Amino acid sequence: MDSAWLFGKETIMECIGERVWVIAEGYLPPSSTGDTRQLESHETACILNTGERDAHIRITIFFADREPVGPYHVVAPARRTLHLRFNDLKDPEPIPLDTDYASVFESDVPIIVQHTRLDSRRAEIALLSTVAYGQD
Amino acid sequence: MDSAWLFGKETIMECIGERVWVIAEGYLPPSSTGDTRQLESHETACILNTGERDAHIRITIFFADREPVGPYHVVAPARRTLHLRFNDLKDPEPIPLDTDYASVFESDVPIIVQHTRLDSRRAEIALLSTVAYGQD
Amino acid sequence: MDSAWLFGKETIMECIGERVWVIAEGYLPPSSTGDTRQLESHETACILNTGERDAHIRITIFFADREPVGPYHVVAPARRTLHLRFNDLKDPEPIPLDTDYASVFESDVPIIVQHTRLDSRRAEIALLSTVAYGQD
Amino acid sequence: MDSAWLFGKETIMECIGERVWVIAEGYLPPSSTGDTRQLESHETACILNTGERDAHIRITIFFADREPVGPYHVVAPARRTLHLRFNDLKDPEPIPLDTDYASVFESDVPIIVQHTRLDSRRAEIALLSTVAYGQD
Repeated sequence: MDSAWLFGKETIMECIGERVWVIAEGYLPPSSTGDTRQLESHETACILNTGERDAHIRITIFFADREPVGPYHVVAPARRTLHLRFNDLKDPEPIPLDTDYASVFESDVPIIVQHTRLDSRRAEIALLSTVAYGQD
Repeated sequence: MDSAWLFGKETIMECIGERVWVIAEGYLPPSSTGDTRQLESHETACILNTGERDAHIRITIFFADREPVGPYHVVAPARRTLHLRFNDLKDPEPIPLDTDYASVFESDVPIIVQHTRLDSRRAEIALLSTVAYGQD
Repeated sequence: MDSAWLFGKETIMECIGERVWVIAEGYLPPSSTGDTRQLESHETACILNTGERDAHIRITIFFADREPVGPYHVVAPARRTLHLRFNDLKDPEPIPLDTDYASVFESDVPIIVQHTRLDSRRAEIALLSTVAYGQD
Repeated sequence: MDSAWLFGKETIMECIGERVWVIAEGYLPPSSTGDTRQLESHETACILNTGERDAHIRITIFFADREPVGPYHVVAPARRTLHLRFNDLKDPEPIPLDTDYASVFESDVPIIVQHTRLDSRRAEIALLSTVAYGQD
């Protein structure tokens, strides 16, 4: 139970998670009452890569009434968490505001994805969070 | 890792998800302070079909004190997301407001279902979301 | 795909869910600003029994600093949903307010359990929900 | 179906849960409007140990831009729930406020972990909760 067990080569950290994740619920509020990045309305995919190799992740965005867009490419470095704001995705194109969407994450190494939204359209904030749907 | 891998015939997108999904918690608030469809109280099943074939989905609604109602029929088209508001289900009958219910989704192809509610009975909104219970 | 498939004897509805469920997070707020049962602070286990036999459920409540209490007995009738408020559990003893607890559900037939809380300690409501941890 | 079944040696309570859990989303709000510990902004890992042996748990905290920190050691006693506030972790070092993080829990016996946050940065509270990602 020493720290070598945790951070060493043969650690369980190498194989935590799944390679495919889905967030079926996506919506970027069109407005916000927040005056800081923290309190601005946002939707986040919290990605954790516990392993020793960088995770190369392809994101595809699905819509209600047109073909999917992607892939978007992001990297979750080894032993790091990446709290990715969907508002920040720009290439190949930004995700439109006030539009229903869904997202699929495909990674070359196991990761964990949790979905969170902060909505500050009104004076008080509202929060939601759920572990995404994972499949190996 | 080129885009053909993602959108091609042999893609993992064909087999993401499950065919049976359950949302054990359902409740349509009887009132709302929202003046737009976006901020009106609503309960949503966010459905994603990543595959190449349309998903034909049968929804059954369960109640506390009477027989289940259904099936309701909806289609989640190939490569599309459907953010279905329970308030919009009309046939065979609308879901009553201010009543506890639960829902089961049966699809002919794999889909993913996430449950979200926006409650604007009071001045500020409250949000909840969770990936539904899936079973293949 | 006719309705007999859904409501018939050989339906998939007989085997949806798990027999053991856990809600590791429990807390009954000590106060409330709601003036109706709907807007009163409450914590709910939303139970769905899609099968043809009543579910006999034993609930055990765990605490931080004393032995578990139970079993509490509840029945989720066949083809019904039961939205159980923890505030309503009385036998063998009520769950104390303002105290951390956790709960385990054991059923004799498969069920699905989703955990929801409405907190109205302040003027606006806050909501949370998550599918419980299930194990067969 | 007597209580010996539940609390006895051969009970299902011995094997409920998983040994590895992940919360990919972590954030300690830097401020709070709450004047009591209950209404202060906080992030909690609700841990349940239903078994007969104490759970020795190692927590590792991951960040966006530096090496992980840990292990933190906590004990969830037999037949007890532990509602652990991340704000209370001090050794080897406190978790910084207003910083994205993620956490991995490794236990020597099966446990269940649920993630909850209460955010009272503004006048009204916001809540989120989700069962963590578990892996045996």
